[in-house]
Amino acid sequence: MRELTVELGERSYPIYIGQGIINQIVAYFDRAKLSRKSPLLIVTDETVAPLHLERVLTLLREGGFAVTACVVPAGETSKSLAQLEGIITAALQAGLDRSSAILALGGGVVGDLAGFAAASFMRGVRFVQIPTTILAHDSSVGGKVAVNHPMAKNIIGAFHQPELVLFDIELLLTLPPREVKAGLSEVIKHGLIWDAEFTQWCADHADELLDLDPDALSYALYIGCKVKSIVVSQDERENDLRAILNLGHTIGHALEAVAGYGELLHGEAIAIGMVGAAKLAQQFGYGEEIHKVTKDMFQKYGLPVRIPAHLDTDSIMSAMTHDKKFKEGTMVYIIPTEIGKVEIRKDVTVHQVREIVELLKEES
Amino acid sequence: MRELTVELGERSYPIYIGQGIINQIVAYFDRAKLSRKSPLLIVTDETVAPLHLERVLTLLREGGFAVTACVVPAGETSKSLAQLEGIITAALQAGLDRSSAILALGGGVVGDLAGFAAASFMRGVRFVQIPTTILAHDSSVGGKVAVNHPMAKNIIGAFHQPELVLFDIELLLTLPPREVKAGLSEVIKHGLIWDAEFTQWCADHADELLDLDPDALSYALYIGCKVKSIVVSQDERENDLRAILNLGHTIGHALEAVAGYGELLHGEAIAIGMVGAAKLAQQFGYGEEIHKVTKDMFQKYGLPVRIPAHLDTDSIMSAMTHDKKFKEGTMVYIIPTEIGKVEIRKDVTVHQVREIVELLKEES
Repeated sequence: MRELTVELGERSYPIYIGQGIINQIVAYFDRAKLSRKSPLLIVTDETVAPLHLERVLTLLREGGFAVTACVVPAGETSKSLAQLEGIITAALQAGLDRSSAILALGGGVVGDLAGFAAASFMRGVRFVQIPTTILAHDSSVGGKVAVNHPMAKNIIGAFHQPELVLFDIELLLTLPPREVKAGLSEVIKHGLIWDAEFTQWCADHADELLDLDPDALSYALYIGCKVKSIVVSQDERENDLRAILNLGHTIGHALEAVAGYGELLHGEAIAIGMVGAAKLAQQFGYGEEIHKVTKDMFQKYGLPVRIPAHLDTDSIMSAMTHDKKFKEGTMVYIIPTEIGKVEIRKDVTVHQVREIVELLKEES
Repeated sequence: MRELTVELGERSYPIYIGQGIINQIVAYFDRAKLSRKSPLLIVTDETVAPLHLERVLTLLREGGFAVTACVVPAGETSKSLAQLEGIITAALQAGLDRSSAILALGGGVVGDLAGFAAASFMRGVRFVQIPTTILAHDSSVGGKVAVNHPMAKNIIGAFHQPELVLFDIELLLTLPPREVKAGLSEVIKHGLIWDAEFTQWCADHADELLDLDPDALSYALYIGCKVKSIVVSQDERENDLRAILNLGHTIGHALEAVAGYGELLHGEAIAIGMVGAAKLAQQFGYGEEIHKVTKDMFQKYGLPVRIPAHLDTDSIMSAMTHDKKFKEGTMVYIIPTEIGKVEIRKDVTVHQVREIVELLKEES
């Protein structure tokens, strides 16, 4: 079992990563001083519930916790105010109080939705993450929680840190291969922005990771969480440094919005975005090597590196103007300067980004 | 002009109280360093908009700010997730970014709704309160913002402090008499929990306050805000002390819920609740005098001191069990121990509260 602490002063919390650690959930909850007097609510989705819900409910009930579950449809469309209201209804019906906790059992969607419910129910109750996807290693660190608005993704949300994250490798073994690849995209991103050595390790261990080898996977998730937690510790509310985590996300979010949530998975969209950022880096005088390493890496992992031809450039550009990474009219863009290092540029023009988008569509 | 600071470390903010100070809104915004590069959004309601919106829009536009407005229906039903979504739509359409501010121009409902929009839009943008009711002196201090759920009031929300509060006495002159009285109920509460001298002053100055005498009103609002800000400074997130602000609110909230929002105004409901708390105090051995002073005071202000006979006791009791002031099954109740002092009791039984509710219905 690997353990790391996200250092955020009085909001610091531990992340536990290992195989079969869900069986010790009661011990972890006791260590985090969760109350047996106040009901818990598990939020999960229709994909995860049949696989893992019964087991978690049973473990907690046998440990003396009062716990019920609220199951939402799988997929990005559940990140809505309507589903938030449904969770609050379930919380009220289950009698949750200010000492209760809401548990997210699922991937990023469930984490974001349950996290925002925990942030806003009674103006904030405790929150626990039990990720069931690789991608969720990213959303489980840093406390960004949100739902979508029909016009923009993640636009209604909060910063709300969990009490603990329980990352059991066993829960990942049922993941479909496409989600494995898409999840590894964020793992690779953490190498690209911060750690050249880990980037090389990712290039060398693609097969083990794609095969869900427990040792390789647990190491990769540990480093991924570690990089993110270092960044978040230094800038919890994204005033500056934290923006580097958005490498590939400006184009990525726009692609997700235009393709319709679901056609491109988040990890796929940002893989394309990271290739774009590497291409943009060349325009600012950084080496071609960055683009080559980035593109080769994602191809090795079977991830897309081009924008699907049927997506309209104008629509992609217009989706970006509602993106939170615009500040006072100026476009903020994260650009790699070498492998394992990025910079936050505020002088990138919409015109330059448009060129990159077109390049990403043409390139064969 | 009177000024006070709500002391909350890096979240500290000023409250300005005075006659005609809205005319200096641009100067106040400049002092708070609000950005002219990022659009502002005013949230107001259908009652306030025809009275004051044009004036505020004009002042800000003449001062070089880009500003639009979003008008919601008047009344408690606007504190909903549906109205929240409408405000977020307006914010996106107006192009608000992370340096923008959302302004609440209105009473407590608008403040709570706009405040939660500001807390959650892009995970938090700046927030300004321009209260147009006396009651809003209460909600404008302390950063509690929220919307309602069909099953419970204020259950979906956040703590989000404003950048500044601009309290112009002139905007209160159009208030209907019933709202003046109901607003003064919270002013009186701040005396009852903290300041015996101010309680006596309120008893001596009822006529001036009910006539909206600018000097008296401005003094009363200043003391009301001051008391609340002292309490909030010591306990921003309601871990302990802040609970004393809930004097009269356990019964009050239940009455509002059962009567249907609107039959009893908030200030009326808590006036009844405060009389009930004073009655409960006698059961814990505190003097009869507290009950007499409390009841006489609210009668002097033309506020109700009895529960309307048609409200069902069972329904009132059941509304209380969804109240946030229950913690781990134990009922927390605020009880006056003398005029200007209260204590937080955790040993009040549901049975005792039920007796008080019945007493408040019978008493002639």
